[in-house]
Amino acid sequence: MLTTRRPYQRPYQRSGSTAPVTAPLRRPGAVGAEAADRSTAPNGPARHRRETRRADRLAASAVFKSAPLHSRTTGADDASHALVKTSENQRLYAYESGVKNAFDEIVPVLKRISALQGEADFENRAQQLARQSFGFELPANILADAWVSGLDMRRLFAWCVFETNRRFADEFFAKDPLNGLGTEEFAAFLQSCGFHIMDISPCADGRLAHLIRYVLRLPYRAVRRKSYAGAMFDIENSVQKWVETELQRFREGKPNFASDPTRYLKVVAYHFSSVDPAHEGCAAHGSDTEKAAAAGLERLLEFRQAIENSFCCGASIDLLLIGVDTDTDSLRIHVPDADGNSDLGRYVSSLELFDGTRGQSETQARESIRAAIRQVSPGVSEGSLELIAMLIENNFSQIAYVRRFHGPHYQDIGHAERFIGAGIGFEEIQLRNLMYFAYLNTVEEAAPDLDVGIKIFTGLNVAHGLPVPVLVRFDYHGQVPGARDRAVERCERVAAALLERYSDLFEKGLLHVMQVVRDCHANGALEVLTCTANPKSEAGAH
Amino acid sequence: MLTTRRPYQRPYQRSGSTAPVTAPLRRPGAVGAEAADRSTAPNGPARHRRETRRADRLAASAVFKSAPLHSRTTGADDASHALVKTSENQRLYAYESGVKNAFDEIVPVLKRISALQGEADFENRAQQLARQSFGFELPANILADAWVSGLDMRRLFAWCVFETNRRFADEFFAKDPLNGLGTEEFAAFLQSCGFHIMDISPCADGRLAHLIRYVLRLPYRAVRRKSYAGAMFDIENSVQKWVETELQRFREGKPNFASDPTRYLKVVAYHFSSVDPAHEGCAAHGSDTEKAAAAGLERLLEFRQAIENSFCCGASIDLLLIGVDTDTDSLRIHVPDADGNSDLGRYVSSLELFDGTRGQSETQARESIRAAIRQVSPGVSEGSLELIAMLIENNFSQIAYVRRFHGPHYQDIGHAERFIGAGIGFEEIQLRNLMYFAYLNTVEEAAPDLDVGIKIFTGLNVAHGLPVPVLVRFDYHGQVPGARDRAVERCERVAAALLERYSDLFEKGLLHVMQVVRDCHANGALEVLTCTANPKSEAGAH
Repeated sequence: MLTTRRPYQRPYQRSGSTAPVTAPLRRPGAVGAEAADRSTAPNGPARHRRETRRADRLAASAVFKSAPLHSRTTGADDASHALVKTSENQRLYAYESGVKNAFDEIVPVLKRISALQGEADFENRAQQLARQSFGFELPANILADAWVSGLDMRRLFAWCVFETNRRFADEFFAKDPLNGLGTEEFAAFLQSCGFHIMDISPCADGRLAHLIRYVLRLPYRAVRRKSYAGAMFDIENSVQKWVETELQRFREGKPNFASDPTRYLKVVAYHFSSVDPAHEGCAAHGSDTEKAAAAGLERLLEFRQAIENSFCCGASIDLLLIGVDTDTDSLRIHVPDADGNSDLGRYVSSLELFDGTRGQSETQARESIRAAIRQVSPGVSEGSLELIAMLIENNFSQIAYVRRFHGPHYQDIGHAERFIGAGIGFEEIQLRNLMYFAYLNTVEEAAPDLDVGIKIFTGLNVAHGLPVPVLVRFDYHGQVPGARDRAVERCERVAAALLERYSDLFEKGLLHVMQVVRDCHANGALEVLTCTANPKSEAGAH
Repeated sequence: MLTTRRPYQRPYQRSGSTAPVTAPLRRPGAVGAEAADRSTAPNGPARHRRETRRADRLAASAVFKSAPLHSRTTGADDASHALVKTSENQRLYAYESGVKNAFDEIVPVLKRISALQGEADFENRAQQLARQSFGFELPANILADAWVSGLDMRRLFAWCVFETNRRFADEFFAKDPLNGLGTEEFAAFLQSCGFHIMDISPCADGRLAHLIRYVLRLPYRAVRRKSYAGAMFDIENSVQKWVETELQRFREGKPNFASDPTRYLKVVAYHFSSVDPAHEGCAAHGSDTEKAAAAGLERLLEFRQAIENSFCCGASIDLLLIGVDTDTDSLRIHVPDADGNSDLGRYVSSLELFDGTRGQSETQARESIRAAIRQVSPGVSEGSLELIAMLIENNFSQIAYVRRFHGPHYQDIGHAERFIGAGIGFEEIQLRNLMYFAYLNTVEEAAPDLDVGIKIFTGLNVAHGLPVPVLVRFDYHGQVPGARDRAVERCERVAAALLERYSDLFEKGLLHVMQVVRDCHANGALEVLTCTANPKSEAGAH
């Protein structure tokens, strides 16, 4: 999961591209390091994500501004494939770059606001700039206090990250921008393949956060996702989910009746790096691809055994092991044999299939995919074959997406998350490298994961004088009495434990925590409880 | 739940009793306070549990020695009732006093061992005394180190408490000494009343630890028990249990088929003190009986609403609210009305019924119980009536038990636990005031409960120079792969968090922690992992 950070390299620019690279991802650099940043030659390596001074930056009124798409979608032959959904790729890229730009706007705008200090009418000018750039105002009390000992840029930075996240999340829940895939259609297809649920545990690494909606192109509401460091999912928790699923089939006939001969499908997605396998793979498994795959398979087998041992009457589940190359977003799918058993060495590579079928018609390419699956596993069931073929075809679009918009591989092959998310929820996080996810109920249990997250952000932010923004969040089911109160209590407890564990950072202003809850039953907006960056004025609620 | 400690009073001695009071509960006093303890007049109040020097103490070979029963079972008219099971009471008392005596033997024997220091052949004589008194040897390395700076009595005391608990638990699982009630018969009776499971949440207070087997006289394996401070059970956890129960009915027809018209019965047992209601009631509710009852009823209603809101097809549960007087072990049962609704003011008192029906025949008394239930709730369903009548009749034996062996009420109406249990498991703890229970997964979540436990033991032990013994334990289902490893990890994590939180006590030798796991699927013995009192020699494993 976790890797050492690599120096940031300039975004890949396609040869033959006619337009300049626009809106590259920006990364907060050291606040006081403007000169050095700006002197970096355009084609040379930069220490931080580059800032692009688009002329229209201040004029834009939309909450999230997308990069012009036409400029990056031409002349990319190695991204062409009959099965690729080009227009969906454009829509997904517009969304991804819009959200990431909003985060990456923060540092350059705060630098400009910092430079305004001491000028007449500072507060008004700062708010005007914030409104124009961010679409929201800054907390007035922070600006008002600036005359005493200067603007508290750390608080301001953290507050802007939290507020940007809040607006991004609210937009997600209100407008459903990643919609477009039929949840019911997918459920029906899944059942036609012999499965009534697809329960995926990816690694908690931020580079797999877009697995469902981007890499696999699945409707994120139709798939259960629960991320764990190293994809080492909790077996007891998964058994509970199995029990819930089966009871719903018995009682409510959802998604189908218990008498229907379908199975529960548990998927593990481990990951590796094709560019730098020894360093940018899964840190939970020492960046060792074979180890990550073996551990994933072992956990799957343990889960199946737990079901078979704990329940009678032939209770069992089906398993699927998937490897994700976080540099290209391509897949290794370990095709089960006739008995449903997987093997670490028996897999199809979506990247090889993509390149091997370029130039084929849709029908030909689909046939080739099926043939390749049958070749590695002649006995594979028809249902598994159809499901795997669909996943590979879906993934072709993502392979093209990376090639079209990023090059042969992502440039940020290491960690480049914008904030840490700690708690339970985060359904809207379907974007790569946006958030470092610490799925937790308590700091005590998740301390090793949190320590790694803090270490990553020590390199990303603290080294440049910027604080680590941690969003503590617990989603709750609003129809359950008292559930909100318990979520609020959890937030408070976890936030207190965090501030205690990392008190050295917090006391220096290098750690800020926002607490939010959300009624996932009502598909509600985030409810901000409090925020260390601006506790006085109910941060985010203006 | 939690109360201030009251000075210990001498065990109640029945007027008319012909034999001397034997084997009263003993309590560890200050190690250096022998003279004061021994000078206490037999009939005067003693600061700690009294020590009785039975002549046969050293000669006894049984692991747990029981008090002679005949001496306390005569001449107790107010404990006589046609519905009381006298021989069962004797058996239960033999077990309870045997176990508690084993714990209360520790301090006087350690005092004698302490006095042996400096004598020739100290180690051998100490071991001989330990073998004779406890039935086990002391860790040789602790004795061997005594010549340097004296015997480490704190370590020795903690180790003896842990070892005594281990032996008591092993005996429980191996010999099932509290057996005698038919698990299957009770399940059949419960179903005849219209319920397929009885799920009880008592307060975690040690004075309710004997609720199932003693106060209600139910087979402890046929009832689900999960204790919470103030009986404030976790609704999400209970919903999960409901889901598991219902799925088992659908899939396996256990305990009956889902088509059978029975219901899930959730019971809350709050508590109060009739002797000192303002101080010895439930501390989680400020020792306010009405508040404790109201909070219990509210939580029950929330649970029902959670089930009804989360599941369709008429999913619901039945509720029962019970109050326990921890001084007399009598009950207030809040009888539901025709619609299954309970009311705080509508209850029957088992104590009043007991006294009101003394002298009646079995048949007459049973009729009186039913009439009383119908009187407070004319519309009560036949099933609820039968269940409540059974609980009252069972409780009559416990009322008699307390009167026969302790007097009008217990003498130790406050806290007098022997150790703290932290974790998940403890099925064998069916005895009153033996263990302060902190049901937990993490110290972080349970910190308030643990703090109260430490505070109680600061009064009980630390004030006398003795350490707080904390047993960290996680039971696991051995048929689930990796479950033992995860239980071991939990033990280590929780123990580390405990020692960190209470490092001031630990560094002074005033806190000791033993870590144990247990395979509850195999009904196994406790497996001791490590113990701060004797880390070198795998404490307890000799």
